Amino acid sequence: MDFDLIVIGSGPGGYVTAIRAAQLGLKTAIVERELLGGICLNWGCIPTKALLKSGEVYEQLDHLGDYGLQVEKRGFDFDKVVQRSRKVSAQLNAGVAFLMKKHKIEVIEGTARLEKGQGAPKVVVALKAGGSRTVQAKNVILATGARARTIPAAGLEPDGERVWTYREALAPKAAPKSLIVIGSGAIGIEFASFYRALGADVTVIEALPRILPIEDEEVSKAAHKAFEKRGLKFRVPANVKKLTKSASGVSVEIEAGGKAETLQAEVAIVAVGIVGNVEDLGLEALGVKIERTHVVTDAHGATGVPGLYAIGDVAGPPWLAHKASHEGVHCVEHIAGLKPTNLNSPIPGCTYSTPQIASVGLTEAQAKDQGLDPKVGRFPFRVNGKAIASGETEGFVKTVFDGKTGALIGAHMIGAEVTEMIQGFTLAMTLEATEAELQATVFPHPTMSEAMHEASLDAYGLVLHI
Amino acid sequence: MDFDLIVIGSGPGGYVTAIRAAQLGLKTAIVERELLGGICLNWGCIPTKALLKSGEVYEQLDHLGDYGLQVEKRGFDFDKVVQRSRKVSAQLNAGVAFLMKKHKIEVIEGTARLEKGQGAPKVVVALKAGGSRTVQAKNVILATGARARTIPAAGLEPDGERVWTYREALAPKAAPKSLIVIGSGAIGIEFASFYRALGADVTVIEALPRILPIEDEEVSKAAHKAFEKRGLKFRVPANVKKLTKSASGVSVEIEAGGKAETLQAEVAIVAVGIVGNVEDLGLEALGVKIERTHVVTDAHGATGVPGLYAIGDVAGPPWLAHKASHEGVHCVEHIAGLKPTNLNSPIPGCTYSTPQIASVGLTEAQAKDQGLDPKVGRFPFRVNGKAIASGETEGFVKTVFDGKTGALIGAHMIGAEVTEMIQGFTLAMTLEATEAELQATVFPHPTMSEAMHEASLDAYGLVLHI
Repeated sequence: MDFDLIVIGSGPGGYVTAIRAAQLGLKTAIVERELLGGICLNWGCIPTKALLKSGEVYEQLDHLGDYGLQVEKRGFDFDKVVQRSRKVSAQLNAGVAFLMKKHKIEVIEGTARLEKGQGAPKVVVALKAGGSRTVQAKNVILATGARARTIPAAGLEPDGERVWTYREALAPKAAPKSLIVIGSGAIGIEFASFYRALGADVTVIEALPRILPIEDEEVSKAAHKAFEKRGLKFRVPANVKKLTKSASGVSVEIEAGGKAETLQAEVAIVAVGIVGNVEDLGLEALGVKIERTHVVTDAHGATGVPGLYAIGDVAGPPWLAHKASHEGVHCVEHIAGLKPTNLNSPIPGCTYSTPQIASVGLTEAQAKDQGLDPKVGRFPFRVNGKAIASGETEGFVKTVFDGKTGALIGAHMIGAEVTEMIQGFTLAMTLEATEAELQATVFPHPTMSEAMHEASLDAYGLVLHI
Repeated sequence: MDFDLIVIGSGPGGYVTAIRAAQLGLKTAIVERELLGGICLNWGCIPTKALLKSGEVYEQLDHLGDYGLQVEKRGFDFDKVVQRSRKVSAQLNAGVAFLMKKHKIEVIEGTARLEKGQGAPKVVVALKAGGSRTVQAKNVILATGARARTIPAAGLEPDGERVWTYREALAPKAAPKSLIVIGSGAIGIEFASFYRALGADVTVIEALPRILPIEDEEVSKAAHKAFEKRGLKFRVPANVKKLTKSASGVSVEIEAGGKAETLQAEVAIVAVGIVGNVEDLGLEALGVKIERTHVVTDAHGATGVPGLYAIGDVAGPPWLAHKASHEGVHCVEHIAGLKPTNLNSPIPGCTYSTPQIASVGLTEAQAKDQGLDPKVGRFPFRVNGKAIASGETEGFVKTVFDGKTGALIGAHMIGAEVTEMIQGFTLAMTLEATEAELQATVFPHPTMSEAMHEASLDAYGLVLHI
């Protein structure tokens, strides 16, 4: 045995799993074919947040008068904005290398492929440096992640020039003056927000009846309105029929409500979902079950093939880094013989647009679909003292309680900094808090988080400030 | 009986108490001698947050290059900054009037005095409009709040010209170019932060060995360093011996480490604490027990005088609006015969400086003093992905767990937006969460709140990203 554990893929799911394994005393290796930290650190969560911060601050420069401030002329250096984002990624990438070294986790740079081995499959790595290396471990965890779904039909293949995925959208040579974003999930909305903040003419196309379709319907509606106020345009619901590229841009033929329309822009971003990285790993030959581009696992990440586990994006939605690392920690603790009890921890989701969106648990509609009798509370930031003092009164908090037990089963927020606030509701749900406990909690004044308290009171007719 | 309940004072403690009383069906009146919303909404928490937001945004204009942005010239219109803050207060003041009307709570404008009545004391109000009105209720709740402590000796009496309290500091005619702040609690530090952000030369004098003396020692130290980086000056520990006023400013003679020094500035702000508003209420004649300017109460707010209760600042520290409203709700639920079980809810505290400070529960030193064997975790924002992406890497999260039971007993944060994050730890403590539950909670990535998770892991040697 070369190792106790080999982790394939070094996104947050992979590298956190490897660190936890090392903490548990397992001799661990991690295989990465590209950059340590995976898509999340290098081409996803992290560099987008750097761009979005630049966009957010730039947008605020247009409203300085609200705060009694003024500047003579605002401008941005797009190259610097992008370079800053790349530098942030490079710093975190180096951070992962440091952590691997610190925990004595061997990093094998190359592309892994599984073959039948002793017990667990053996891992054959086509090394970046050339040649190959075969390693055998007691257990292997697949954390190969996912990538942008592409629609080869209709001219929507990304070409890096006129048709982008998140990857090209993160580091273009220049900011496009006009942009069509196909898909209004978190990724599409974040890029739309960023480029709009820098002044681009941005139209978002969504095939489903509303933007951010996995969010609670009221949040979708409020987001739509808030984004339109910032000049974002929407075609919802609308289907893309065909995309035609020219030297100067793209033409996108769409159909909305039975009517055809052609939109023009310099560039299109395709953000229509995610597919798991399940190819060329030798999974079929091992008999690993794959469904809709994802590896099928049990609750502990086991694939059914002895010694082979999968966690994170490649094991299915939600495609979120924190879900991946949470699953990875659970999986490796299970492998090590611990009895991790964190299986049902609720997974929050965040969209870093302006305003921000964050949620956890069931939407009101999902609660009703499950036959629950939800008690719903709401509180708008426009009557929250801190929000008024900060000039950030957009949005609201919505809580969903189980009418029978009083347990908090969902929370939905839109507004400034809600991505930093949702952890409170996530903790509450993890701790199986009821409305009485949320109501008895003292939220500090003046904070926007008081709206969380008020929404919990409102669900039971006890709201104070409306 | 004119009313079921009379509340004296309409700060958040008073008006929230009145709303809760109305929800419980009590016929309620509220007496206010000045402005609805009390100090908090009109001359405290709220208008300072408006000023601080202007200061924070203005300060950021100096670092736009970090985000790839630029402006040609930054400036502020001090009058507009102040007017915005006043407008925010006026809006919230009107909001309280609306809430009183909505809940059919009678507002009696005037100064209340208690006299022996039937059961509860009767309330004699010297009306603002002239004349007086005597009202009798089944119960009376004192929520008269507190005011700045002043030191008449040594020339420190506020005169509104050269020597300010928070009141003058909130709405001066012009921004002082130099400023001495006496006292480094939350109020002193917030004004120091604001005026420094606008470019003033600010020196803070603290008599105790460290600034923000009620915070955890590590937080105090980090804050001191962060504030000095912004150009704030400190004399700690130092005693003010004498303040002399002149036409152009103030001279403050201090003694620090046995050495005398004289500081000069345009203005001094005195922020050396709070005294309860217990005077001229007729409390002595009723036999109400007063200790160190505060009304002594039992756990439900009862003063011992039949039908007379006290909540909030006038009933003692911590002098925080959310503690006042929490006590008020508890008190009125107790009066109404409910059995509120929220007595031991932990009370968070926030300071809205740059960086922000927020804490709840015991400091590490307090835990040790109580004979506990605390397990302490720390996580710095400088290695948090979102903090790096946002360029807000100052500060850290510190957790204190009871070594025996694993219960979270304290949390201390310094950094961007921590005032919106502390509610998570407050909820956790209210729910009596242990380290295992905090560790099993999925914090969204990438957020600064992940540092809360890491600090909880770190206390048990399980930190991931250091």
